[in-house]
Amino acid sequence: MQKILIANRGEIALRVMRSAREMGIKTVAVYSAADRDALHVRYADEAVYIGEAPSNQSYLVGQKIIDACRQTCAEGIHPGYGFLSENAAFARQVREAGLTLIGPSPEAMEIMGNKLSAKAAAMKYNIPMVPGTEEAITDVNEAKKRAVEVGFPILIKAAAGGGGKGMRIVDIVADFEEQMQLAVSEATSAFGDGSVFIERYVSSPKHIEIQVLGDTHGNIVHLFERDCSVQRRHQKVIEEAPSAILTPEIRKAMGKCAVDVARSVNYTGAGTVEFIMDDKLNFYFLEMNTRLQVEHPVTELITGIDLVKEQIKIARGEAISFKQDDLEIIGHAVELRVYAEDPANNFLPDIGTLQSYITPKGPGIRVDDGFEQGMEIPIYYDPMIAKLIAYGKDRAEAIERMVRAINEYQITGITTTLGFGKFVMQHKAFTSGNFDTHFVKKYFTPEVLHTGNEDEALIAALVMERLLSATKNTVDVSVDGVSNWVKNRRVF
Amino acid sequence: MQKILIANRGEIALRVMRSAREMGIKTVAVYSAADRDALHVRYADEAVYIGEAPSNQSYLVGQKIIDACRQTCAEGIHPGYGFLSENAAFARQVREAGLTLIGPSPEAMEIMGNKLSAKAAAMKYNIPMVPGTEEAITDVNEAKKRAVEVGFPILIKAAAGGGGKGMRIVDIVADFEEQMQLAVSEATSAFGDGSVFIERYVSSPKHIEIQVLGDTHGNIVHLFERDCSVQRRHQKVIEEAPSAILTPEIRKAMGKCAVDVARSVNYTGAGTVEFIMDDKLNFYFLEMNTRLQVEHPVTELITGIDLVKEQIKIARGEAISFKQDDLEIIGHAVELRVYAEDPANNFLPDIGTLQSYITPKGPGIRVDDGFEQGMEIPIYYDPMIAKLIAYGKDRAEAIERMVRAINEYQITGITTTLGFGKFVMQHKAFTSGNFDTHFVKKYFTPEVLHTGNEDEALIAALVMERLLSATKNTVDVSVDGVSNWVKNRRVF
Repeated sequence: MQKILIANRGEIALRVMRSAREMGIKTVAVYSAADRDALHVRYADEAVYIGEAPSNQSYLVGQKIIDACRQTCAEGIHPGYGFLSENAAFARQVREAGLTLIGPSPEAMEIMGNKLSAKAAAMKYNIPMVPGTEEAITDVNEAKKRAVEVGFPILIKAAAGGGGKGMRIVDIVADFEEQMQLAVSEATSAFGDGSVFIERYVSSPKHIEIQVLGDTHGNIVHLFERDCSVQRRHQKVIEEAPSAILTPEIRKAMGKCAVDVARSVNYTGAGTVEFIMDDKLNFYFLEMNTRLQVEHPVTELITGIDLVKEQIKIARGEAISFKQDDLEIIGHAVELRVYAEDPANNFLPDIGTLQSYITPKGPGIRVDDGFEQGMEIPIYYDPMIAKLIAYGKDRAEAIERMVRAINEYQITGITTTLGFGKFVMQHKAFTSGNFDTHFVKKYFTPEVLHTGNEDEALIAALVMERLLSATKNTVDVSVDGVSNWVKNRRVF
Repeated sequence: MQKILIANRGEIALRVMRSAREMGIKTVAVYSAADRDALHVRYADEAVYIGEAPSNQSYLVGQKIIDACRQTCAEGIHPGYGFLSENAAFARQVREAGLTLIGPSPEAMEIMGNKLSAKAAAMKYNIPMVPGTEEAITDVNEAKKRAVEVGFPILIKAAAGGGGKGMRIVDIVADFEEQMQLAVSEATSAFGDGSVFIERYVSSPKHIEIQVLGDTHGNIVHLFERDCSVQRRHQKVIEEAPSAILTPEIRKAMGKCAVDVARSVNYTGAGTVEFIMDDKLNFYFLEMNTRLQVEHPVTELITGIDLVKEQIKIARGEAISFKQDDLEIIGHAVELRVYAEDPANNFLPDIGTLQSYITPKGPGIRVDDGFEQGMEIPIYYDPMIAKLIAYGKDRAEAIERMVRAINEYQITGITTTLGFGKFVMQHKAFTSGNFDTHFVKKYFTPEVLHTGNEDEALIAALVMERLLSATKNTVDVSVDGVSNWVKNRRVF
């Protein structure tokens, strides 16, 4: 494979191109009308225009991607994440065109793309699932018996249901009958069907996922876990590796399960097996993502493995160059997704022009982004500006570096989630590791953002002004001095 | 220690402030008239003006540094490298002012600051020195006898000498008498003293140095080696860790020697013990640098230890938080010093304004710098713009990432050593590890820089132009296409 096409945009397109270039592989970018001046276009060896800004006229049109490959003689396609990355039909189209998709087979994508077939595949390997009934129940006594077997708290949910209708959380067996009757009658009136499922209710869930790699020679390894529990509306916003709370035994057990899930579909390439974990560290299979994850850099930092290079090597038919036992977790990494969103305004996208844009540097800091000062964040795509990743010898150092880097990041012209990220990093629930997927709902309100940062910014600006206008050689720029001075002249 | 003053400028001042900030320590910058708008001034919590641009009126005036500490209530001083960092008199002045120098004692600095007293201290621990005579010799027969003992090739040098006068390299014993007579007569006519020293001539020397840390509780550890053999006029330009050629046994032996050298002066803080190594991996003590080195980041990357944080903790009286056996080399790191110098013009400084300045990013890349786009490189100081550091799982990956990052680095307005760095990284002698301190002299000529990069830059500019001016929706920007197009319209 001498040349590959990256069927994506933004930071992930640049990320993939960097590894390809290090391997001596030529790169082809594709771009929509909104991305004419984008960095990924400038970075690539070649670039092909593929249509108007809306994704369904460009980045989502498989035929245009394949045509761009033919036009540039690219032999492989890296789909990044999102867009066509988990589209089995596209994967099949690529294969039929005689090209190589840098990703798993269409068959593996298909099975894992459907929750039922994914669970059926995993079941063969006895992968733990959230305990519960496999069939709908209508009889109260039967249901109660099963509820006791499953263990409380339990969740009763309408078999025909959705949207919370006919759903009941039951903490103790004494309440079961009453709640079941309520659920059944709610379900009957809402869906005309009173049958229910019963499953264990995970009240304080963590989202833990395992990175896996499989090659075409039957080797499958895992690269440990990522904790992605800090989410907003089921969207990950902060990820870390390793998890603050896993024991070596549970890590090993989860790793083995993840490898088994991958094996159940003869998985090739990079993939992620997602689990839900309760507060007793029991874990249950959720689903498998058949692509590179947004949060893959934290795994790269703690393992030293370049996941994109491994993807490309696997697609070339090479065997994975290391064994499970060669891998070791060294240090700790945290990632913050920096979005063009306003945390004070319900995280509404706040797109526009990056009037100033200076990224943090120094020990342990990696910034994966796709923008430069003066560029615009297009309205058509995910409003992520950058991934800010901090690495340290341990979790405390990684978090300290993250906070330092957030303070260093200069973005004006657009409201971002940097302040929100700092709030999380400094919250006791986060630093202690004692947090779950309800973190944001539980602790975040727009008020927590007003921590005096505005004063600091004003002081900084005034210090500069004072420095620049200084006529004598000695300038007092002590923070206290300026702070008082600021307070006294707040009127202007 | 709640607040420290950084008695330095540029990248190292920022580097120190970043670690201090992560530790929750306030920072004070000092600045000369030339550095009013410098990044280190903006980054610090406070800043104090200390005089005109020439160093001897500002950064080198110890009393001004101490006054700035008093003015801001800073309790500690980090001297960085250069300037006052190895000045024992300043260290004493700091101590007498009741302040803490983040560095070794004045006594240790003094002993290691003088080659003779340094060697005398090291001798007590049987540290290997370049074999030779300890006293001057005039008698030819006596000299020949000693030369045979030392082993050929040997170096005859005038005891009173300097600048190469009276210096002779002798490869075989048969030539000794004739060369000795020439050396003696040259020395006599040049210095009026014909006596000479004899020492082993290291014909293909590597510069290998060992990072050490000592605390005030008597603990001393080493953090392995750095290979700094790629030098230009005894100035390091590329450094790496670990060395491409050391065996574990020699690494261990050198580490032990370095710890012994440090122990000979009860060393506290971060220091570096430098050795010269011959092509049979024999190593000999050269000198000790009693400060943080420019090239310390490569050690940080392979050990995961933040050396500045360790310096500060040691200065606070804490014990080193790890033992020798806790340390392990993970991966490989290479550093390129990016200078505002013209490699095509004998590396003459080429200072001016950074018209564009975009630093590389992505996996494994760290840039330690002190500039932003639009800033000027002042004429008064070392013309280093940045340190570009690449980390990888092994040496090959670190070098690949370095080359990729060099290609990504955009600096206009100033000629830099980036192209020179790329030449070294891609040279067979460097990639094989088979190089010594004569690398630049042996292999570099300005002609090697003309590798077609100018064409590439032109093509990139024209691709952009073509993209921006494109009126139809499909643009052919394949490199070959543009390259032909460029050739055809070269006239404009």
